[in-house]
Amino acid sequence: MPPIPVSPLATPLPELPPLAGMRMAAGAAGIRYQGRTDLLLAEFAPGTTVAGVYTQSKCPGAPVTWCQAVQKSGKARGLVVNAGNANVFTGKAGDLACKRSAEAAAKLLGCKPKEMFLASTGVIGQQLPDEKLTAALPGLHGKLSADGWADAARAIMTTDTFPKASTRTAMIGDAEVRITGIAKGSGMIAPDMATMLAFVATDAKLPASLLQKLLSKGTAASFNCTTVDSDTSTSDTLLLFATGQAKHARVPEAGGAMLRDFRRALNEVLLDLALMVVRDGEGAQKLIRIDVAGAVSAKSARRIGMAVGNSPLVKTAIAGEDANWGRIVMAIGKAGEPADRDLLSVAMGGVWMARQGGVVDGYDEAPVNAHIKGREVHIAVDLGLGTGRATVWTCDLTHGYIDINGSYRS
Amino acid sequence: MPPIPVSPLATPLPELPPLAGMRMAAGAAGIRYQGRTDLLLAEFAPGTTVAGVYTQSKCPGAPVTWCQAVQKSGKARGLVVNAGNANVFTGKAGDLACKRSAEAAAKLLGCKPKEMFLASTGVIGQQLPDEKLTAALPGLHGKLSADGWADAARAIMTTDTFPKASTRTAMIGDAEVRITGIAKGSGMIAPDMATMLAFVATDAKLPASLLQKLLSKGTAASFNCTTVDSDTSTSDTLLLFATGQAKHARVPEAGGAMLRDFRRALNEVLLDLALMVVRDGEGAQKLIRIDVAGAVSAKSARRIGMAVGNSPLVKTAIAGEDANWGRIVMAIGKAGEPADRDLLSVAMGGVWMARQGGVVDGYDEAPVNAHIKGREVHIAVDLGLGTGRATVWTCDLTHGYIDINGSYRS
Repeated sequence: MPPIPVSPLATPLPELPPLAGMRMAAGAAGIRYQGRTDLLLAEFAPGTTVAGVYTQSKCPGAPVTWCQAVQKSGKARGLVVNAGNANVFTGKAGDLACKRSAEAAAKLLGCKPKEMFLASTGVIGQQLPDEKLTAALPGLHGKLSADGWADAARAIMTTDTFPKASTRTAMIGDAEVRITGIAKGSGMIAPDMATMLAFVATDAKLPASLLQKLLSKGTAASFNCTTVDSDTSTSDTLLLFATGQAKHARVPEAGGAMLRDFRRALNEVLLDLALMVVRDGEGAQKLIRIDVAGAVSAKSARRIGMAVGNSPLVKTAIAGEDANWGRIVMAIGKAGEPADRDLLSVAMGGVWMARQGGVVDGYDEAPVNAHIKGREVHIAVDLGLGTGRATVWTCDLTHGYIDINGSYRS
Repeated sequence: MPPIPVSPLATPLPELPPLAGMRMAAGAAGIRYQGRTDLLLAEFAPGTTVAGVYTQSKCPGAPVTWCQAVQKSGKARGLVVNAGNANVFTGKAGDLACKRSAEAAAKLLGCKPKEMFLASTGVIGQQLPDEKLTAALPGLHGKLSADGWADAARAIMTTDTFPKASTRTAMIGDAEVRITGIAKGSGMIAPDMATMLAFVATDAKLPASLLQKLLSKGTAASFNCTTVDSDTSTSDTLLLFATGQAKHARVPEAGGAMLRDFRRALNEVLLDLALMVVRDGEGAQKLIRIDVAGAVSAKSARRIGMAVGNSPLVKTAIAGEDANWGRIVMAIGKAGEPADRDLLSVAMGGVWMARQGGVVDGYDEAPVNAHIKGREVHIAVDLGLGTGRATVWTCDLTHGYIDINGSYRS
């Protein structure tokens, strides 16, 4: 297969200033790919707290199981991420590979293995050659740097066509703090938590329990509202680290008003990263936003949005620039959520095509046809039943998806 | 778009002898297609009973709502089916189109409108030009014939590339009865009931309540275990008519042993038709059978099978002839059903690739690679948890699906 061209929906890598209390290095361990970096080592200052959300898969990868176990202390000193091999469905050997990797990295960073977080992405069902990983770690440790964000974003890519990072600042009291995150992901994207590897860090000083609340809430409205292909990964991992180096007043355990601006910034970073993953959806040519209103609840609205966003028929119609709203009605109908044909309305590009169960009188397809030819397509659905709302993002389903996934391993 | 080539998985139309108590005619009403038949009229003898299963969509088409209402009496005298326009999401006008069509056909057949069954398939969201339909009916009535099965199978096609029919005989007591059915469907196939239009008839004499039990049970193990693209149609309708013309002894209300052979034949016809629909899945190049065993229940096994059968990553891997069992593990994991990584086994073409959570020692990919190059691919999954079993059928996901669905309307 020829190299996959960069997604037409790609966004440029922003400037990524250092984050106090965090150093990184990327390198080539040759785990699967040749001629590129595939390994990331990050070091966090003592006192760093951590929160995480993980795949809901019943067959999660060994690194997910590892992180879930060590996260209980709420403390983190380091992170190792490799690309090319997901260390999933590798049995007890996979667990041992995690243990050996954590021990090797902990020794270099002078911390305990259970303060090390691990993530792997790539092929499923092959043993992780962790000896290659541990052999490369000393070299990475020797070049740890505060300026490593861009290299880190590149080292964790698999079928991604562009590196993904986002950064914001926020005020906590009188002090400015920074939040920076990176993500990877392109296919197997229907996060039921977080998508295939995203790492966010802040220099704010926040207890792990509070960090977890902020992360879980932010994830629900970002990563968990995106889908590329309805296939939930075995390795989905989103970690949020707080190094505590910023000089702000103590944040109360309950968070509250003092964190309002921090929450805003964190949610922006999470949504930014989640949308970059959709923009790099395998074969994606169009970014699709689906606003659902009038559902019986927010949960119902999200399910309806996901049914539309996961429908192969809706996604291929948009790929073909066909404003086929009948397929949107079909997808709403199959969601299994309350809906009434005679109250349902559907719009595209701000133009209502169907109102209360039938096509709009004198509906003019021309502006909708113009809208659907663009890179960003906007669908709105009003169920007319209640006040439940949700927004879901997805991409179109094109020949590129088939090309990429019909020959990924070979 | 050039004409869609006939599916490589197509099966030839079997010989379809007349069925006592039923006459049919097909014709061209010009509802959407030109130069082909698109309308079917069937007449049933007085005393014919009927059973039906329909889409679970919350936005069903007007003909579905019509059939559900008139089916309550358990009696049928006629059936009208058109292709090209689904009469879905057409508001009150769509309901009126049903009423006028039923009235016109009932007048010709000398029955009540509520003894007429209706089905429509095609584009969603456009008013059905029922005046074209009613104008064509007298011509069809004039040529009703017992030999109309093959023409009927052709008249109801939309994106189908081959006509679909199946027939069997069975003994009820000392008398032979016949069961014959036709189906259409190619995309928007994830029947939560029945797939987009199938009609089965028998000359057996069976009360409607018993007929319904037989049909519901047979559907659960056939149509409801198939998927092409996870998109459940708004128009799924499966009707079973019993004309009561066969000369068998009276069947007790409870059915029982006397119907054993009839049940076998009915289930074979239903599965035959369901698999023909999958064989004509849009763009399908391979028929995929997924046997799930060792689940905690049959329901859980079916859900896991459907998660595998609906996974775009599994389906594109098979299209690419890549025995990527890691994706099968992923799909099992996302199903939300009980599964244990360390007990899970996966086979393809009869070769176990993974056993109890890891790749099989000395696994030789060669026979699996040979198997996956064929037209029929067999996946087996053993969860190692219980005795729940299910079999699910699907097809691969290819460029053909994108071609067909990116330009269906245009």
